Amino acid sequence: MLNVMQRWREPSDCCLRRTGSDTTAGRPACRGDIMREVAVIGCGVTKFGHHWEKDHEDLLVEATYEAIADANVELKDVEAVWCGTFYPSTGISGNVFSDTLKFFGKPISRVENYCATGMDNIRNAAFAVASGAYDLVIAAGVEKLMDAGSRGLPPIEGIFSVAMPYVSAPAMFAMAANRAFKEWGWTREDLAMVAVKNHYNGARHPKAHFRSEVTVEKVLKAPMVAYPLGVYDCSAVSDGAAAVVLTRPEIAKEIVGDDYAVIKAVGMAVETMHPWHRPSESFLSFPATVKAAKMAYKMAGIENPRKELDFGIVHDCFTITELINYQDMQLCKPGEGAELIRNGVTAIDGDFPINPDGGLKSFGHPIAASGVRMVAELTKQVLGKAEGLQVKDAEAGFAHNLGGPYSVATVAIVSRP
Amino acid sequence: MLNVMQRWREPSDCCLRRTGSDTTAGRPACRGDIMREVAVIGCGVTKFGHHWEKDHEDLLVEATYEAIADANVELKDVEAVWCGTFYPSTGISGNVFSDTLKFFGKPISRVENYCATGMDNIRNAAFAVASGAYDLVIAAGVEKLMDAGSRGLPPIEGIFSVAMPYVSAPAMFAMAANRAFKEWGWTREDLAMVAVKNHYNGARHPKAHFRSEVTVEKVLKAPMVAYPLGVYDCSAVSDGAAAVVLTRPEIAKEIVGDDYAVIKAVGMAVETMHPWHRPSESFLSFPATVKAAKMAYKMAGIENPRKELDFGIVHDCFTITELINYQDMQLCKPGEGAELIRNGVTAIDGDFPINPDGGLKSFGHPIAASGVRMVAELTKQVLGKAEGLQVKDAEAGFAHNLGGPYSVATVAIVSRP
Repeated sequence: MLNVMQRWREPSDCCLRRTGSDTTAGRPACRGDIMREVAVIGCGVTKFGHHWEKDHEDLLVEATYEAIADANVELKDVEAVWCGTFYPSTGISGNVFSDTLKFFGKPISRVENYCATGMDNIRNAAFAVASGAYDLVIAAGVEKLMDAGSRGLPPIEGIFSVAMPYVSAPAMFAMAANRAFKEWGWTREDLAMVAVKNHYNGARHPKAHFRSEVTVEKVLKAPMVAYPLGVYDCSAVSDGAAAVVLTRPEIAKEIVGDDYAVIKAVGMAVETMHPWHRPSESFLSFPATVKAAKMAYKMAGIENPRKELDFGIVHDCFTITELINYQDMQLCKPGEGAELIRNGVTAIDGDFPINPDGGLKSFGHPIAASGVRMVAELTKQVLGKAEGLQVKDAEAGFAHNLGGPYSVATVAIVSRP
Repeated sequence: MLNVMQRWREPSDCCLRRTGSDTTAGRPACRGDIMREVAVIGCGVTKFGHHWEKDHEDLLVEATYEAIADANVELKDVEAVWCGTFYPSTGISGNVFSDTLKFFGKPISRVENYCATGMDNIRNAAFAVASGAYDLVIAAGVEKLMDAGSRGLPPIEGIFSVAMPYVSAPAMFAMAANRAFKEWGWTREDLAMVAVKNHYNGARHPKAHFRSEVTVEKVLKAPMVAYPLGVYDCSAVSDGAAAVVLTRPEIAKEIVGDDYAVIKAVGMAVETMHPWHRPSESFLSFPATVKAAKMAYKMAGIENPRKELDFGIVHDCFTITELINYQDMQLCKPGEGAELIRNGVTAIDGDFPINPDGGLKSFGHPIAASGVRMVAELTKQVLGKAEGLQVKDAEAGFAHNLGGPYSVATVAIVSRP
């Protein structure tokens, strides 16, 4: 039946590049046709960091109320919710939102997808709006890791012991760094410059966990975690929550005028949980990111992201990840990632700023909150309302998550209407 | 902003009753307009029961390959997957499907929602197809409980101990039974007749866990679990997997001719995780079911389910639950549930058969698999291809899940095209 499926797929390849609703008149709904019509009209983000005095319920309430106030709607206007968690509350389903917000009698889904949990919640919420099933929904994510009882990511009994018996997250990405050093001549200084850039940006964001600049020297002299990754090459454990309000553009216009952003696409790819068992594993590229980016660019009709987009927010769980992400996101060719940081291309005043918010390096990575926060940052940037540093003339950008043992990636593209 | 939202909602109330795609020409997509256009073209269900020799991967492979063969497609034709699990693999995200099926580089979401996990996966998959984002997707669910190390549902550390410190599932529903006995004069015999009916049906289904009939006497004499619920009043712990292939009707026609069913609606409601703390809690009705049913009926344009639908599949985790479900699903008035079982209305040859497959009573309840299996059973019934007992002239029916401490419910409506 492949021929049938190919026939159906071909005309849809260009769907997202069409403009004007008249092109769909009289025809069945076509792939992706409606995807670009999902509007972000409100964003809420807690301060990320130590929240010893707050539970994840407190954080979720704070982010959600900020989002609905920003959207100029009330909680009772919300028809459905997608609320992600990874560590805390695994297994408490939609109740993580319903009991916390006293939001009863409506649909709430919990979507979980490793470190891409937050953005996959947005993805599913966007599909539901695009399908016409709901007019106004919330996608949220919350995580509370500071009091998990350990430093680094807490173990998941019976899961990680099977999947990753010996490999911690820093060890996984350290292998990538060592390979990049050997293959392309990248250095610890290159990695350090990523930390310097992201902490420069994050120091100016009121909601970042770490708000101080670092120097290359400080990064290089920091305690080693997994060679060549020192403390400042790693993102931190953190608490936080984020929420966005999604609707259709026609409704957005009525509520907030032109003050909304549009989700053009959300690409996603899942690979193996055991990448190091694949003979083809190079550690020089994360295939999930490459595939998710291709999907997103195709959905949004983007052929040259470096030219057609203005900035990006990437999953910088480690400094090496950011440099490899440059390549996987097609901002440069393989091996050239370090050149972008050396030449200031990805600095806040560079040609293509990356992580103007400060990234996971400054915010930490409360798993399910991160992807939602990233889309909120994207939205604020394209609306010219960035809380930290504003990217000049930002009209469209991408956000990217990489999760699990780099087995899942999501890429969202957000622009002005 | 409520006025704006109400204005947007009003015209959409009748959207699903419209027929013909011409009604949407030149207008923005309207709520639910596309929902009815999601087709089920393939179903796969493993035998449910003891599978000591199989892992959940084996079960997932079996169900998925059966579904794609039934749909006359290949795995490579599938563009995206929603795969639910509750207990096993909590935290392994999309990899539960990717590594198991060697299905790499495509989007896979894990949706988790207590005992409604399976149907919420279908719900999200259906939204994605209806949005136009994908043409062909799989929604699956798998659970392996027989080797979980305990009888009954295994605990989730740190979650259920907080949420439900003293209350087991049988104890929760026993309170409902006792209240119904007092309020409406229902008896243990009424409950027993539910078990007798469902085991009669299940004894004829080749994939049921329990395939033998029981008598009222046997049910009444069985060991007590939580008064008045004896062993035969409770659904069993079980292993199983199920998968369905979803596409757009236009594509369905090309692949399988008229041999497909249509998802008309999926309603869902989430209530509190602590229902017994609500002063209004009566134990005589589960509000999540009432609300999810209303949503589904509204989406599908159904005003009188007893007349407009032909049969139903309800979440009979306990015999008392089935009787209360009759009422919550609007098949009869409060207090009349027992009359339906006494008068044979819900028997396989009755006016409105319920659980023609044998229900959870016969299949057991491998959490995430159940909701997917139910939608598969619905599909087979409306296509006249039921594996167990065929409901006469079945054209449209519903499936229902009730999950958590009766805090979440989903209702799907499936019919012939």
